[in-house]
Amino acid sequence: MKPVASAIVALAVVGAYAAVVHAQTPADRSIKYRQGVMSAQGWHLGVLASMAKGDRPYDRDTAVRSATFLDQLVAMPWDGYGPNTESGSVNTRAKAEIWKDWAKFEKYGKEVKAETAKLVSAAGTDLNALKGAVGATGKQCNGCHDDFRTK
Amino acid sequence: MKPVASAIVALAVVGAYAAVVHAQTPADRSIKYRQGVMSAQGWHLGVLASMAKGDRPYDRDTAVRSATFLDQLVAMPWDGYGPNTESGSVNTRAKAEIWKDWAKFEKYGKEVKAETAKLVSAAGTDLNALKGAVGATGKQCNGCHDDFRTK
Repeated sequence: MKPVASAIVALAVVGAYAAVVHAQTPADRSIKYRQGVMSAQGWHLGVLASMAKGDRPYDRDTAVRSATFLDQLVAMPWDGYGPNTESGSVNTRAKAEIWKDWAKFEKYGKEVKAETAKLVSAAGTDLNALKGAVGATGKQCNGCHDDFRTK
Repeated sequence: MKPVASAIVALAVVGAYAAVVHAQTPADRSIKYRQGVMSAQGWHLGVLASMAKGDRPYDRDTAVRSATFLDQLVAMPWDGYGPNTESGSVNTRAKAEIWKDWAKFEKYGKEVKAETAKLVSAAGTDLNALKGAVGATGKQCNGCHDDFRTK
């Protein structure tokens, strides 16, 4: 296939994909997006917490990998909290306070990013460093969840 | 609070969080993890496809941001396809072929990472470059979905 024809076919393929995605409401898409990102964060924090608690052996490469993924993921949920995404036809535990006190929500976001940046470095140092940084990151996560997520 | 006491409290906090997560079966956790990551990929490919199709104006910063997130996300789903995660109590569209032909699945993974790396560069160039790279990435996504995901 010639390049141009190939590009047109490929775009049509993406278009078909996008059409399926757009069949959901914008609020539902946003809720699912942010939940997907948060769930992935939980996975990698879980890997690191397991090492910190001694449930699995400390492995530097695995720790750095999960810490790096977590650090990347904490930058991502924001797009999913746009206007009119407080509720949808899918369940959400996000509290309305997020949109009432966006500055505070955003402050938590900056703080957790600072913690995960330190976590990447600590994960590559040793188990003791990892323990401290996982604790600090987890505390930050929970602080935000306490204020902005229902139980 | 003294640093050590603070770290112990923080670890307890992470522990409580991990306990909730672990109430799910390993297979369900894996399925939810990979679905969350794939869903986030879809979001950012959607942002880029909208620009490529002219549904929203090309904006360099937004394009580079979504392409970067997508490039990071395509490295992440693998942990969710571990042994005995073919099915669970939550729905999954993953085909058993993934575990029967892991080498092919992994090859697709490397190929899509190569495409998203090009996409990051193209997203920062101009709309025409973005169009081509979005098409190539979307084609790569769909090739893998055709082989390894049920309709």
